[in-house]
Amino acid sequence: MDAPNGSQDPEKTLDSQVKAFFDSAPPLQNMNDIFQKLNHFIQLNSLSSENGIGRRIVCVTSGGTTAPLEQRCVRYVDNFSSGHRGATSTEYFLKAGYAVIFLYRRGSFQPFCRSLPDDPLLECFEATERLNIQVREAYSKAVKTAIMDHHAPVTSGLLLKLPFSTIFEYLQMLQIISKPMKDIGPRAMFYLAAAVSDFYVPWKDMVEHKIQSGSHILDVKLVQVPKMLSVLRKDWAPLAFCISFKLETDSNILLNKARGALEKYNMHAVVANELSTRKEQVVVVTIDDKITVQRDKSKADDDVKNPLIKLLSQRHSAYIEDSKRTR
Amino acid sequence: MDAPNGSQDPEKTLDSQVKAFFDSAPPLQNMNDIFQKLNHFIQLNSLSSENGIGRRIVCVTSGGTTAPLEQRCVRYVDNFSSGHRGATSTEYFLKAGYAVIFLYRRGSFQPFCRSLPDDPLLECFEATERLNIQVREAYSKAVKTAIMDHHAPVTSGLLLKLPFSTIFEYLQMLQIISKPMKDIGPRAMFYLAAAVSDFYVPWKDMVEHKIQSGSHILDVKLVQVPKMLSVLRKDWAPLAFCISFKLETDSNILLNKARGALEKYNMHAVVANELSTRKEQVVVVTIDDKITVQRDKSKADDDVKNPLIKLLSQRHSAYIEDSKRTR
Repeated sequence: MDAPNGSQDPEKTLDSQVKAFFDSAPPLQNMNDIFQKLNHFIQLNSLSSENGIGRRIVCVTSGGTTAPLEQRCVRYVDNFSSGHRGATSTEYFLKAGYAVIFLYRRGSFQPFCRSLPDDPLLECFEATERLNIQVREAYSKAVKTAIMDHHAPVTSGLLLKLPFSTIFEYLQMLQIISKPMKDIGPRAMFYLAAAVSDFYVPWKDMVEHKIQSGSHILDVKLVQVPKMLSVLRKDWAPLAFCISFKLETDSNILLNKARGALEKYNMHAVVANELSTRKEQVVVVTIDDKITVQRDKSKADDDVKNPLIKLLSQRHSAYIEDSKRTR
Repeated sequence: MDAPNGSQDPEKTLDSQVKAFFDSAPPLQNMNDIFQKLNHFIQLNSLSSENGIGRRIVCVTSGGTTAPLEQRCVRYVDNFSSGHRGATSTEYFLKAGYAVIFLYRRGSFQPFCRSLPDDPLLECFEATERLNIQVREAYSKAVKTAIMDHHAPVTSGLLLKLPFSTIFEYLQMLQIISKPMKDIGPRAMFYLAAAVSDFYVPWKDMVEHKIQSGSHILDVKLVQVPKMLSVLRKDWAPLAFCISFKLETDSNILLNKARGALEKYNMHAVVANELSTRKEQVVVVTIDDKITVQRDKSKADDDVKNPLIKLLSQRHSAYIEDSKRTR
């Protein structure tokens, strides 16, 4: 893993990095359960017809992954992400007719909850005189809407929610999800909004017990997480429509970095966003163009994800049509 | 800060470390608001009489602190802590007659919610036929209890909740809280259950923008967070009854580390717990004895924090009596 960059066949290097990552990862505990839920979900939505070809299915990833520094994890490096983008995008994908696999960080923002306070159960309800509870007047509409909008797609099998915490869980689950997604070809989309760790400590290199705080300086050495986007595109689900994100705090380097990611990982589009303005506008970078997408400021509750998902849904439809012609 | 250990007057070194930490910290945004809430809370509970001397007040800290790696924070080192201990202890302190300042990590576990699922609003409720919502039968009792038990102390001014995220916010808020707590002398208790970062990157040493992932290895150097427990005991609130925690994954070193912390930081008690058994038993280490506290296994819903807080409350009462005699 410590070989200097550029001195070896890059593909071979990536393959060995990927192998090292998965060999190092602690196995998922509930793999069979995830498999069953997934297969059921994808079968169900492949039967339900949309133009006779089954429904389009998107895997939305959301929230940040953690990289543990100790095997019995006390300390970890985390990537900041509320999960707001993934959760809100999920709402718009459902509205656009997709079935959604929502792969989210435990405890991160959930779809249909954006009008609720941080701690909704304790904030939104009150006890009544007859020792019962009721929704507080001020939250009445928001709570009703959140619960009904959330339950409808879950009950009708259009929304499957799968949680992760560590980078190990995240990438193993992404690989598992890509298996049945591969089978539905271009109808599948990956919308990779999660803030994935760039660096990790390989499981075997970790100390088992808590790092002691006796020394004055803690020196943590992390190695790069292999670029799984390439592997997803090349091997895991080569026909799926793939969208990734580029977040930077420095707008000067943003578009170049997005363009770089598009080419390097062979994405169908990269959504470029700057930390401070990302709720107002993003730029969708494709091989042919750069499209600036802005939220409709005349509507107080409009979100930039609304026009973004409309655009991506159109592009995805065109991609499916193209795939039919070239088959 | 890089001076070798042991070569200088330890007290002088600590003072300069503390100064460096607070000089480095970005200022709290809502300081005045916190001040007002705190003063009101402590005044209110000093008037309400318990043996004519005002109510005992405990500051319970809960959840893990983060240490940002970048100023516009994308990555940070986090300490794992659900906040379960602090939240549950808060319940038992209220039951024991204390007023509680609950200083908690944003998004961590809240008092009175232990019987609820992770995502209570979405899990516990369902839509009814008349387009309204109701509590699902299975959660009916748990939801009612959580909301009523939570609202009662908040409404009657016995529970003040203050959130933090970073190590900078946490230590600044602890300092602010200690000011009015100092004024109530031995009636104050600090129950320091938060998992506080041992290491941090000084604000001025941080890069402003996101760390780029081009290099193959990320080398993060963190310096030790000054031991504020000493400062709390010595300067901030010298008469307050102080309890800290020692969590280790290795039971072989646990009791020695707890004893070490007791002496080093001049605590009144250190609660020693091992990661794997901490829900069943803990050991309370004081200068005179080591008391093993176990949960009552004959009661399914008993928690080790129940007998723990009973014991600490007794010790605190004895400490207050002692203080009167020696005054």
